[in-house]
Amino acid sequence: MSTVLDFPDRNNSMTVKFQQIENITILGVGLIGGSLGLALKENDFRGQITGLGRRTETLDIALERNAVDFTTTDFKLGVEKADLLVIGTPVSLIPQMVKRISEQIPDTKPLFITDAGSVKTQVVKEIDDFLGVRALSHIHFVGSHPMAGSEKASVAVARANLFNSAKCIVTPSTNTSSTAIQVITEMWEFVGGDTIIISPTDHDYLIAGASHLPHLIASVLTQTTQSVQTQSLRALELAATGFRDTTRIAAGSPEIWRDIFLQNAEVLIPMVGSTIKTLEQLKILMKNKDAAKIEDFLANAKKIRDSLG
Amino acid sequence: MSTVLDFPDRNNSMTVKFQQIENITILGVGLIGGSLGLALKENDFRGQITGLGRRTETLDIALERNAVDFTTTDFKLGVEKADLLVIGTPVSLIPQMVKRISEQIPDTKPLFITDAGSVKTQVVKEIDDFLGVRALSHIHFVGSHPMAGSEKASVAVARANLFNSAKCIVTPSTNTSSTAIQVITEMWEFVGGDTIIISPTDHDYLIAGASHLPHLIASVLTQTTQSVQTQSLRALELAATGFRDTTRIAAGSPEIWRDIFLQNAEVLIPMVGSTIKTLEQLKILMKNKDAAKIEDFLANAKKIRDSLG
Repeated sequence: MSTVLDFPDRNNSMTVKFQQIENITILGVGLIGGSLGLALKENDFRGQITGLGRRTETLDIALERNAVDFTTTDFKLGVEKADLLVIGTPVSLIPQMVKRISEQIPDTKPLFITDAGSVKTQVVKEIDDFLGVRALSHIHFVGSHPMAGSEKASVAVARANLFNSAKCIVTPSTNTSSTAIQVITEMWEFVGGDTIIISPTDHDYLIAGASHLPHLIASVLTQTTQSVQTQSLRALELAATGFRDTTRIAAGSPEIWRDIFLQNAEVLIPMVGSTIKTLEQLKILMKNKDAAKIEDFLANAKKIRDSLG
Repeated sequence: MSTVLDFPDRNNSMTVKFQQIENITILGVGLIGGSLGLALKENDFRGQITGLGRRTETLDIALERNAVDFTTTDFKLGVEKADLLVIGTPVSLIPQMVKRISEQIPDTKPLFITDAGSVKTQVVKEIDDFLGVRALSHIHFVGSHPMAGSEKASVAVARANLFNSAKCIVTPSTNTSSTAIQVITEMWEFVGGDTIIISPTDHDYLIAGASHLPHLIASVLTQTTQSVQTQSLRALELAATGFRDTTRIAAGSPEIWRDIFLQNAEVLIPMVGSTIKTLEQLKILMKNKDAAKIEDFLANAKKIRDSLG
């Protein structure tokens, strides 16, 4: 399934299909990269998959688990043969990875690049600007955000079905070639994802609400609850499944989420503000013992949550 | 396992053990009451279990599932033979249930009563006052809070292993008889629970942090995220497992949680205040693009969450 939202037509005579792709390099083989490798193989991808990274331990696990066919820590070797490159590094590194890649590959054949970062506007703009200024028209970049994953980010927990029915967002800008959209969209569909095509700005706004704000709030909650204790017992010792579920995502990588909070600060700040406003209202309702309005608030929250199934 | 915290010795010559209990009545057979019935039978409780409630549909399911041996909607019939009564109604109804029970039973034999509510101070005080004023010394009440459950509260999802290793808090006041503490503690241990004995006030403070605040915050989050949408897409449509887990508890019963928020308002209000303070600090860190402090904050949250396992 692909939800294609309005985008301007692109003048692009080249048409490449994902099926024509022979060599895929996964740069940064973590949960997402590793699962992509496993899922490509599970779905009988006929080409070859190279795992490129800095840590041989990680690459060894990827190879052992058969998530990739080859591994290398040599950047040039890892990228030069690739037809399609998936960057699985933290978001702050993605633009410089594209720059490094562009220096190592021949400009005679098209190279498709995507990433898997959770924040898009700034990354896409930086890469677009770079590719535009250098007139690197053989590099077809489009941002991706497969909405799958876990607070555990290692290749050791990668799995072939991670993208099954997962929403895989592809975020073209006005500079993106239609062939990049096509190839990358087909790749996510090939591994079972439901693709959604939206602009980087819409992505960052919607995902702030669906993912970034929840992470921020779960992290705040762990901190507040930690400070609750009597002489003999801490609230955390009484945490049951409710608290554990509510705060599970707070166990995510601080480095990854630091980058996300920084890059999406402009969008997140007003959402945090609106959260504070609702919390202030609830304080007043509790102070006034306003049973009816508290119940309305809770019934509305339940309705919203129930609507997700 | 039982964690007994400091409590004054009680002058109480009567010693009753849970093993001596023959008739248990469960008043309000929902998830907790139904699971208690199933768990008692699973652990070879030799006595008889009566399910008392207002809705025959619910009682029929309880009987069908073999969570109780008898059912009745007749209050007098349901309580008069009981040696031990577990009140599974919403918290705001518990004190009046104790009053009704006291009017229907002979004052010649001891009756043990507990509840399963998530908030204790006000309920315990009201019941203590009532029992004290009426000098109903044959009624041995002590509050309980088995920390098990789910946002789905029906007997249809009750299960015999619900209390296995669950923290079952027993909350005596200075008026509680030691025999009540003993019998009720043994009951929760009989069904697999790990009992913790703390005062009602300590309970409400610690559980505000471990359960009530998380519920409040999850509910606020659903509301904030619901308002995030573009012309073609809503943030909620992009909600993945992270958001779903973080907000799962918000699907709990509005009536139950309204009572909890009202009864624990005094404790919750400053915790909401402290949450707001942390959110305000994060707004400033994001505004200042303070990468180091944002990462510190996230690393601390991760550390706290990881410590729960």
